[in-house]
Amino acid sequence: MMVDGRPYRTIRVNDDGWSVEIIDQTRLPHRFETVTLRRPEEAAHAIKAMLVRGAPLIGATAAYGLCLALREDASDEAIDRAHALLAGTRPTAVNLRWALDRVRAALRNRPRGERVEAAYACAAAICEEDVAINQAIGRHGLALLEGIAARKPAGEPVNVLTHCNAGWLATVDWGTATAPIYMAHDRGIPVHVWVDETRPRNQGASLTAWELGHHGVDHTVVADNVGGHLMQHGMVDLCIVGTDRTTADGDVANKIGTYLKALAAKDNGVPFYVALPSPTIDWTLRDGLAEIPIEQRDATELTHVSGRGEDGAIRTVVVTPEGSRAANYAFDVTPARLVTGLITERGIAPASREGLARLFPDRAGTADR
Amino acid sequence: MMVDGRPYRTIRVNDDGWSVEIIDQTRLPHRFETVTLRRPEEAAHAIKAMLVRGAPLIGATAAYGLCLALREDASDEAIDRAHALLAGTRPTAVNLRWALDRVRAALRNRPRGERVEAAYACAAAICEEDVAINQAIGRHGLALLEGIAARKPAGEPVNVLTHCNAGWLATVDWGTATAPIYMAHDRGIPVHVWVDETRPRNQGASLTAWELGHHGVDHTVVADNVGGHLMQHGMVDLCIVGTDRTTADGDVANKIGTYLKALAAKDNGVPFYVALPSPTIDWTLRDGLAEIPIEQRDATELTHVSGRGEDGAIRTVVVTPEGSRAANYAFDVTPARLVTGLITERGIAPASREGLARLFPDRAGTADR
Repeated sequence: MMVDGRPYRTIRVNDDGWSVEIIDQTRLPHRFETVTLRRPEEAAHAIKAMLVRGAPLIGATAAYGLCLALREDASDEAIDRAHALLAGTRPTAVNLRWALDRVRAALRNRPRGERVEAAYACAAAICEEDVAINQAIGRHGLALLEGIAARKPAGEPVNVLTHCNAGWLATVDWGTATAPIYMAHDRGIPVHVWVDETRPRNQGASLTAWELGHHGVDHTVVADNVGGHLMQHGMVDLCIVGTDRTTADGDVANKIGTYLKALAAKDNGVPFYVALPSPTIDWTLRDGLAEIPIEQRDATELTHVSGRGEDGAIRTVVVTPEGSRAANYAFDVTPARLVTGLITERGIAPASREGLARLFPDRAGTADR
Repeated sequence: MMVDGRPYRTIRVNDDGWSVEIIDQTRLPHRFETVTLRRPEEAAHAIKAMLVRGAPLIGATAAYGLCLALREDASDEAIDRAHALLAGTRPTAVNLRWALDRVRAALRNRPRGERVEAAYACAAAICEEDVAINQAIGRHGLALLEGIAARKPAGEPVNVLTHCNAGWLATVDWGTATAPIYMAHDRGIPVHVWVDETRPRNQGASLTAWELGHHGVDHTVVADNVGGHLMQHGMVDLCIVGTDRTTADGDVANKIGTYLKALAAKDNGVPFYVALPSPTIDWTLRDGLAEIPIEQRDATELTHVSGRGEDGAIRTVVVTPEGSRAANYAFDVTPARLVTGLITERGIAPASREGLARLFPDRAGTADR
């Protein structure tokens, strides 16, 4: 997507043909800085210290990290060492391990001299596939926005509400929930996005607002508390959110607070869509509320707030009283009954076992194995 | 209520018999400091700069402000000047004007020599009436908590979720939503309170958490996004919130985000109660959503977050990107259909025209005038 008129991806190979450029997302939204990775240790640090985040981007960064390791030493032993180094950065990130395994498999039985090139080709393929999936999600979701725009007086914006950051910063490009928004915007459909702040980590206020703003998409940041009021007053045409994990029955685990917005959408007749690449469907699960464990993260994410201080430096302030306990549940589960549809790379499915199975007959069967 | 073992009210006359002690709530939760008011200008400043907030407490402070003015000059002209000074501090606060008018009326036809004493008596009566109303609300709400506790295994806490601060800090003592909680706690019923952070002004994280903690009530601060998840998992027995304005039909205007919690309560069969002194019922309104205008406050309340910095000083950080617009709707309306009951000083009414009319037959008629 664009950053002040120049196209960017969250990760790319530099013009030298081998070093890798990423955006240091820990500096956003206050500073836009790119970082060049030249060694596998630098890639590992970028993942561990969350300069990059979002499952697809973490996978792509790990894949390129393995490429950088191969340039130094293409032996089987060195590959295994680098694999272990990179896989250990975020132990629970499924995508990370998947990407590393895929690059390693692409090197199997190849002479050392061909390995570097094969690894870069595989990493590039991982990136291009992510972009293609998001573009396909974008095209399917675009039809929803076009339909709403067609029913409105000319020039009146389509108002979309989103929660957290399922934007291009979490992927290689386009994002999932944001792909339909960027496509509509690029085609001249007037779009306005209500951006949920997304406490406690503020991914909406910091990342989503930043990326929409720099691509030129009109948006307004609101407290997470506000969405219900907006929907009661007809100020939201459509909700689109991402997901971390969706069950075979269409229950959606996503950033904490998503469920509350889905309730408000249902109560006010506002369509509520979830954008997802099909690999995030967990065909082995049915009842999300009973079966998806919800991670509890460090309470300091809630009690401590970071931002730009009066002096321009990034500072942290404590907002709770000393001695008050805080709890930080990271996700919640939105039952399928509250979801209007799932926007996948193959099209839009009703949030149901049947709906998903119709779009993914090749995979849905695995649920019953 | 107690602050570290010592009983406090938010406002009281000092032992000298005339000067007035308040808590500087702008320093909470990081510092507990009382301030003595000796002149009407100091009372006006305390209201305007929000050292005191909450409708009942603002009224009480204004009443004492008029007392302080009378000590300096008990003439009719001086009373009118002080009335105007104090009434101008928060122009939209209905309670403020009501309290000032009441004190002024109490002085009518009195000789100058008796005015100071009459004014102090009237201000004290305003305070005592507020305390009595909140205690009555507390007693009625206590029955709900007792009922829940009786159905639970012995020693297991009653889990209450509250939003914003309808606590003793907003009143003279006890609070509205918190009165049943404090009464249950004081009687040895184990209570645990989920405290919504309440963005953007963080009244839950700062004020409610502080007052519960200092009175010794077990509590946990959570992001506003979390309540739905807690209710889905049976971790909330009861919601109790306050209200700024309730219609004759039982629609409830309260801090933004209340509606989302009411939706989650309904979806999960959790009782959702609103605690209110009857003067906050607006008998002239029926449909809250259509008739109650929602104030939009300064967007900097959302974009700028204040807290305790690393150096201990109160600091402010900016959390949104430069150039991103923010909107700050201060209240929302929870339709009566989502409210289990209204806890008033006269008892608990169903949230309906009939329910309220049965408890307040003397006032309900005004709605049709």
